[in-house]
This record gives sequence, C-alpha cells and structure tokens, in this order.
Amino acid sequence: MAKITSVSPLAPASFPDLPVIEGVRFASIAAGVRYQGRTDVMLAHLAPGSTVAGVFTRSATRSAPVLDCQSKIGRDGDEGAAIIVNSGNSNAFTGARGVESVRAVTGAVADTLALPVHRVFSSSTGVIGEPMKHERVVAVLDDLKSALSADGIADAARAIMTTDTFPKGSATEIEIDGKTVRIAGIAKGSGMIEPDMGTMLVYIFTDAAVPQPVLQSLVSALNRTTFNCITVDSDTSTSDTLLVGATGASGVQITEHSIGFMEGLRRVMLDLAQQVVRDGEGATKLVEISVTGAASDADAHRHAKSIANSPLVKTAIAGEDPNWGRVVMAVGKSGARADRDTLSIWFGDIKVAENGWVSPAYDEDLAAAYMKGQELIIHVDLGLGGGTARVWTCDLTHGYIDINADYRS
Amino acid sequence: MAKITSVSPLAPASFPDLPVIEGVRFASIAAGVRYQGRTDVMLAHLAPGSTVAGVFTRSATRSAPVLDCQSKIGRDGDEGAAIIVNSGNSNAFTGARGVESVRAVTGAVADTLALPVHRVFSSSTGVIGEPMKHERVVAVLDDLKSALSADGIADAARAIMTTDTFPKGSATEIEIDGKTVRIAGIAKGSGMIEPDMGTMLVYIFTDAAVPQPVLQSLVSALNRTTFNCITVDSDTSTSDTLLVGATGASGVQITEHSIGFMEGLRRVMLDLAQQVVRDGEGATKLVEISVTGAASDADAHRHAKSIANSPLVKTAIAGEDPNWGRVVMAVGKSGARADRDTLSIWFGDIKVAENGWVSPAYDEDLAAAYMKGQELIIHVDLGLGGGTARVWTCDLTHGYIDINADYRS
Repeated sequence: MAKITSVSPLAPASFPDLPVIEGVRFASIAAGVRYQGRTDVMLAHLAPGSTVAGVFTRSATRSAPVLDCQSKIGRDGDEGAAIIVNSGNSNAFTGARGVESVRAVTGAVADTLALPVHRVFSSSTGVIGEPMKHERVVAVLDDLKSALSADGIADAARAIMTTDTFPKGSATEIEIDGKTVRIAGIAKGSGMIEPDMGTMLVYIFTDAAVPQPVLQSLVSALNRTTFNCITVDSDTSTSDTLLVGATGASGVQITEHSIGFMEGLRRVMLDLAQQVVRDGEGATKLVEISVTGAASDADAHRHAKSIANSPLVKTAIAGEDPNWGRVVMAVGKSGARADRDTLSIWFGDIKVAENGWVSPAYDEDLAAAYMKGQELIIHVDLGLGGGTARVWTCDLTHGYIDINADYRS
Repeated sequence: MAKITSVSPLAPASFPDLPVIEGVRFASIAAGVRYQGRTDVMLAHLAPGSTVAGVFTRSATRSAPVLDCQSKIGRDGDEGAAIIVNSGNSNAFTGARGVESVRAVTGAVADTLALPVHRVFSSSTGVIGEPMKHERVVAVLDDLKSALSADGIADAARAIMTTDTFPKGSATEIEIDGKTVRIAGIAKGSGMIEPDMGTMLVYIFTDAAVPQPVLQSLVSALNRTTFNCITVDSDTSTSDTLLVGATGASGVQITEHSIGFMEGLRRVMLDLAQQVVRDGEGATKLVEISVTGAASDADAHRHAKSIANSPLVKTAIAGEDPNWGRVVMAVGKSGARADRDTLSIWFGDIKVAENGWVSPAYDEDLAAAYMKGQELIIHVDLGLGGGTARVWTCDLTHGYIDINADYRS
C-alpha cells in the first residue's frame, strides 16, 4: 500500500463524539491479516431482539462476504446478531477458497457468541484476489469477545480503514413521543468509489425498535439519495456493504411513517457519504453537482453523474479553473436529454452560461475566485422539466495517481 | 494552454510519407485565431465529382460546425467540395453567434472557391464557449486558395493540432482491377477522447470513385470497430468529426462489395485511431483491451470500455502493476453479463486468473516484467458466449493532470 502521509484537507476537524447505542457493543484488535502495527478487525455484537437491514454492491463480481450477507439479510431471529469486519484483504475473486474463509470466520463468530450462523454478517476490505488468512481472524475472536464494550465504536471506525486518511463517524438524536432515539454510524472508503449502492463499508446502529422489513425499506430508499449519489472515481467496488442494526433498547417503535426517524437516519447516511468523498483519494475539494430542470429525476441523475465522473471536469476543479465548457461537454455526452439552448450553468451563485452561450453578466475573475474555495457547488438547469438530482464528488489530482499507481507495492 | 514540452513516448518514429491523392489539394496558414507563431487553419479542396461522407459526435451539446456539417452530408453535387478547419477555438456552446461564425466562414470559402455553400464543410477545435474570431479565418482565404497544393497534407495535419504532441497521418495503396487506389488521412486529438463516433477531427481522402451512399455506409460501419473503440479519458467531445472524401481520379469504381477497398480504408482508420490514443494526454502506454466469450458483441464492448475507462485500471498500468483485481472490478461494474467463476484474464500471454481465482500457474514477477512494456494487451474471456470486442486505451498519469488542470491558463 502506498504510504498516506497526510490527512485529507477536507477532513472534519475531529472525530465526532458518538453516543452509546444501547444494545450494541464493539471491539477491535490487531490480528495482522495484512497490516502490521494497527488494528484490522472489528466485531460488533447486537443484543437479542435486534433487526438488521442492508444494501450491497450490484457488481457482477461481488466478494464472497457480500454474497454471504445477501443470503442472510431478512432472515429473522431474536437471538441477536454480530458483524465481523477485517481490513487488508477483501476476500474478493478468491474462488471456492473465499467461500471457505467466510464460512470459517462467521462460523467461529457464531460459536464464540452463541449465535446462529445466519445472524453473523461479515465484510472484508483491501486487496482483491489474494487468499485471505482467515485463521488470523478466527484466532483473535476470544480476545475480541472479552473486549466488547458499549463505547468501542470510535476504535471500530479506525480498524476498518484501508487507504482512508481519517476515520468516519456520524450520529444524531431524535425526540419521538418524549423519548430520545439515537443513531450512530461509521464508514470507510476513499477509492474505488462509485457505489451502485452504499459505498465500501458502512455500519449504522440505532436504539430504535424497527421491524426488519421497515428498516430494510427505509435503508434502501434513503440509500438512493445518499450513498448512491457520491462518486470519487467512477469505479464500483466488489465489496460495498451498508448494514444498519436496530436494537430497540430505547423502547421507541418505528413504523414506515416515522418521518422524524427517517430524517435522522438520512442525516447520518448523508454525513457519512459526504465524509467518504471528503476522503476521496487525493481530493482537495468537495463538489456538489446539483441538476434541476431535467426531463426526469433519472435524467438529472445521469447528467449529474456524467459531470461528477468526467476526468476533464475533475482536473479543471483541481486546477481551480472555472472551465464551464467542460460541464457543457459532460452534459452533452451523458446520454440523457439536453438542449444546448435551454441549458444554464452556475458556479456557486455565479451564473456562467445561459441561452446556449456564456452569460452576459459573467465575470471570469469572480468565477476563478470562487473556484479557490474548498467546497464548491456546480448547478446545471436543463430548462426541460422538473427532474432534479444532487451528487457529490471531489477533484482529480496528482494525489490520486500517486496512491493508485503504487497501491500494492 | 499548458505547455507540452515533449512528444509522446508512444509517437511513431516519424510522420509517414503520404501519397498524393489526385483531385485533392491542401493549404495551411497562420491566421492567429488563438495561437501565435504556428499554423492554425487548413483548407482542403476536392475536385468536381468528389463525394463526401462523414460521422459526427452524438453529444447533445454538439458544436455549431458539427450541426452544419450534418445538415450538408448526403446532399449530392458535382461541383467539388471543400473542408475548412481551424484550431484554437471549437466554436462550441457559442449560441447564435456560433452559427453566424459557421455561416461567415463557409460562405466565404464558397465564394472564394466558387462552390455552393452546401459543399463546404467546416470544423473547429479548441476552447469551448468563447466567441470565435471568424473574421481572422475569412481574412486568409485568398492566401489559402493561392497556396493550394497536392502535397500539402502533412502541413495540414500540423495546422489542426491542439494539445497533440505529434501530427497524425496514415496511408495505404490497394490494387483493384490492375489499377492503384490510394487512401491517405490525417487526424488530431489527444484529450476529451471517448468518441461516440470518430474522435476529434479526422480527414481521409481517396482517389477511388465511390458513390456517396456507399461511402457513407462504409465509413459508418468501419467507424464502429475503429474510432468508436478508442478512449483516452471517457470524455466525449462536442466537436468530433470524421470526413472522408473520394475524388474518383483513379478511375476505379467502388461498390459496397469492394472488400479490398474496405480493408484498406479500415487499415487507415484504425491506424489513425490508434495514433490518437498514442497521443493520449500524458500517455506512456498503449493498451489493447480484448474481450472474448461475452454473451453478445454489445456486452463485450461494454466490458472492454468499462476496463479501458477505469481510473483504477489505468493508474495501475501507469504504475506497471499487474493488478488484475482491478480488471475484475471493472468487469463487475460494467453492467454487462459476467460470471465470476467463468472469467479468465490474461496480461499478454500470461494467464493470471481463471475459475474465479488467481491462476495456479500465475507468476507475479513474470506479469510485472510484462507490464514494463510500452504496448500491452489485456485479454478477458467471459466464458459465456461468442461476443467479442477490441478497444484501445492508454494509461492515466501525472501528465494527464498536468495538462488538464491547467488547460486554459
């Protein structure tokens, strides 16, 4: 792995204070799966009665842990649940051996915590295509069990990092019927990020009581406007996993009409998604692409992703160049409906183009000054209909090349 | 424009000797449209009786010259034809003013050469969204007319360059019915290259006699396996234009069944397409992505493009890292049919993966040595059907960032 010597300039000032989610305990340990001198395995234990929902990469070459999780999600049980995660090796494209590794690890966790194996979810992140030393994970399970603690979530966020330059956490509290519901989550990811669902690895926990089908439908719906709307480099991992566990310890019952809970969950998911972009490999700017006036929401999303993934747009942003011509190019190539002459483009509040040409009031010096900011908004209105989308991306810099031209050496 | 100080390491040793195509004359001049101290306008004149076919970008934000060409292609006439091209300004996204510029330039060329205006085709390449100083082109037309010469094609190839580091030319001769038919072409392009048709600007000429509908159908068909199969950065220009002119001066009549002519035209088109990739911005390696065993040709093309456009694959190639896990990732995300366990991958002749895992005979040192070559082949067999595709791309290096984070400064 290339040495990451400095934290992303877009990182939050500090890791947030995450509240204890009653009913969930965490432990982390250095098992030496691949890395030395750092923690690389985390275990989360959810109390009996907890429900778990998840969304996963749509890649046709999904990793063995993802396939295993997908086969287990939605199978109910009151026994509690566990999530075991290692960094350093993704156990993806490892053939029959990969399946054995997942069975070995989840089976051993089930034994250690006295859970049925279908309630043990696993994730692996790191290099693709190398056999995983799963015996190193199995060997530390007793130690992990002894170390389980209600306030171990911040350490867990660190144990799952790979090329990340900072651990990612987010939390919120909602008052429902006079009681407090807490939601806290962690995420990792900074490259190979254009999730067709949640990006890389995300684990969110709440003490609300949420029936599994309700939790699943909330998570799937909210995923579409959060993790599905970020892109670092247009590459989709074989291992993307988002798991959400609800312990019910707060005693607050959630239905699909609980707007407050939904809003809280959306906040945490969006915050974690944006933190992943903030840690985009080599990123120096966080960019929101806002598209309005498209023929449909799907068209708006297609335009927004085309802009957000364009290497020419992303290098222009890196160079602090208000090169709106490249935005026009990206709209043109997206395949979604566009009319050159009804298109308008803004950088922040600065209108740069309208009526098929540069805006009469456009001041390039003003736009160039705007581009020096660390957080930018590019807004495109198609002038065709009511379709909208928002997508978050980062710039494409020398740092991305440095990290990825040397990943395995 | 960023200074390009050195020629691409993938450039051919020298510009080829292009034969005279009887019936076509060329002239180039320094008009100062944007650049100083170099030629930036080229004029080609085709003798009466010539036919012209073309394919163009499918971008929804096509430039004014492209829209004008499209309206003229297929309108027959015996008067001859002309092609006028400027570099430095693409006249794209320039609103009504852009249309005026095209009318002014093509109208003036028609007057100068005594042609109907619908037989004058124009292209512009360079910055998007800035008004074009078309009067500077009009002002040099008389000089261009005086300078027209049968052997001016090499100078024309230089006049149309923008970020190109070398001029691109290709030619072939075919014997048909005891007579010699010549084909010669020039191209420019090195960034914003994922043609949805021909890339950037390409002009090919032949002394064969080809009815316009035959020429058009040949060019459209051959385009699918040549210019449509290259990608530098997945970005599609607003100005991509390929024009092919046939003067008939050789006296050889071509029909849609003239296999020899078709093969010759294909060779020239593929050579020019690959030269564009060889001049990919920042490129240090030319990479052929060969996909076989896909469920259909369309699926094969989708997989090949997904691999060829993946920033992670392209940075691994830049780093000479045989990181086949990223190839697996790119196949998985393409959206086309794939089965992890029937997939095989080769780097050159080295089989790296099969049966959903690394190949038992795989030797990483051997693969790493292979990756040091300047021309690489990545071959993926899906093991599903008979679909095949070949695509050409280059690596993603610091040079790409240097050029594009600073294009307009």
